[in-house]
Amino acid sequence: MSVVFARVVVVGTGLIGASLSVAARRAGVFRHVVGVGRNRQNLDVALASARVDAISDDPVAAVADADLVVLATPVEAALELLPTIARAAPSHAVLTDVGSVKAAIVAAAEKAGVAARFVGGHPIAGGTATGAAAADAGLFSGKTVVLTPTADTTRAALDAVRDIWVAIGAVILETSAAEHDAWLARTSHLPQLAAFALAATLERNGNVPPNLLGPGFRDTTRLADSDADMWAAIARLNLGEIVAAMDDFSGTWALLREAVATGDDTALRGLMSEARRMRTRIPR
Amino acid sequence: MSVVFARVVVVGTGLIGASLSVAARRAGVFRHVVGVGRNRQNLDVALASARVDAISDDPVAAVADADLVVLATPVEAALELLPTIARAAPSHAVLTDVGSVKAAIVAAAEKAGVAARFVGGHPIAGGTATGAAAADAGLFSGKTVVLTPTADTTRAALDAVRDIWVAIGAVILETSAAEHDAWLARTSHLPQLAAFALAATLERNGNVPPNLLGPGFRDTTRLADSDADMWAAIARLNLGEIVAAMDDFSGTWALLREAVATGDDTALRGLMSEARRMRTRIPR
Repeated sequence: MSVVFARVVVVGTGLIGASLSVAARRAGVFRHVVGVGRNRQNLDVALASARVDAISDDPVAAVADADLVVLATPVEAALELLPTIARAAPSHAVLTDVGSVKAAIVAAAEKAGVAARFVGGHPIAGGTATGAAAADAGLFSGKTVVLTPTADTTRAALDAVRDIWVAIGAVILETSAAEHDAWLARTSHLPQLAAFALAATLERNGNVPPNLLGPGFRDTTRLADSDADMWAAIARLNLGEIVAAMDDFSGTWALLREAVATGDDTALRGLMSEARRMRTRIPR
Repeated sequence: MSVVFARVVVVGTGLIGASLSVAARRAGVFRHVVGVGRNRQNLDVALASARVDAISDDPVAAVADADLVVLATPVEAALELLPTIARAAPSHAVLTDVGSVKAAIVAAAEKAGVAARFVGGHPIAGGTATGAAAADAGLFSGKTVVLTPTADTTRAALDAVRDIWVAIGAVILETSAAEHDAWLARTSHLPQLAAFALAATLERNGNVPPNLLGPGFRDTTRLADSDADMWAAIARLNLGEIVAAMDDFSGTWALLREAVATGDDTALRGLMSEARRMRTRIPR
């Protein structure tokens, strides 16, 4: 492992950006990190707690001598910032991101003329805590990071970004942005929407005594507490795959309803077996 | 609190039956408990670990001098046993159960001519551990127990069963069997079926890399690991309410799909708000 980025700019010093900064400096792959953000209080925390080496509220000035720029803002802010940063950063700078939808940002990189040195990334990690204060150098250890290079991405840029994540303990999964978005629609966006629908159904049709809501209901709907702005953006940016995944679910739901309504024990047990078989594949 | 049952028979010494036995003896409301079951090994554990005072594999003989009979078997076994036990138990004996579907067992009690002294019960408690070995005297502390008396239930029988649960720390919710079943279809059976459908959808349509299945997917589908026999029975015995609840969910799901597919941000955020509002009512 020989990759070392001397001058890194992390745009967005929330949990993911600040954790990456801390972990990569500790692993020796980032030398000096400038944290960029719009929330002054969070930036001050990031600097005071040494999550970053310097801070700035001006992305254009900050990236002027960067070797690596990591877009770690919410996905819509990253889409907005990318053209500006592509113009302001040196032509040798590698650009990457950590957003949970990939086709849109990869297309934006192509449009901004930085396809060769942009490497889309998505660490499958996180937590309920937010902000620089919650940064955790071990956040990505053993976690999967999806990288979505295109035919235009240079080998050097891909290798460099891959080496960063490997150095901090992550496991790399390389695929296309389109396949990433199709997969995540099913593994992440679909359970999210099911949790919303389940809780909203009780709000609309219910009037059940809260004492009857046990741990099963709580766990099944936990994702419904997620940030509304983030999910509205994901729904917009991954619309096609999400609607396809919702329609797959509707198909299974119709089969399950039919099995229950007709008392078809064989069909019901078949669906339950498929569900349990799938569950055995979830990593512990 | 003056209720004391001298001779109690608990039919089914699994987690619920054995925990009730231990808790109620400790609280002084059960004096002598006979555990009845078909699994000899589990019965031996129940006796050896003093979860019960005596054991039997013959429900008819065991209930002959009982003051109280608790049906704590799976719900279909309780339905099968009730007529026999109604004939074999003394005419003063109070009968109760702990099943998660109530209309069917209440109807069975009426048919067996014991409506006056049968009190349907459903403790909203449990755990992943099973069997007498997992018994826990604190299992019902602070938990809700639904009781479903009918117009025929005597005040004495209802008060006695209520007093048992109160003595071991439970909170009582009294309602009709029909309303219990409608509520549980929404708070318990619906999330169960959503978990089955979600996991089965990935099994049928997926082929996603297991590394992408994170804690969100795991929690949302956790209930899909539940016992298939138990859920097939619940689906049969609460068919009408479950189908109605599934159709309520389908309605919300259609609204959510429409909001996503048309990019209707207002509708999407409205549904997310309803879901979050509902979540705030779940007891911690």
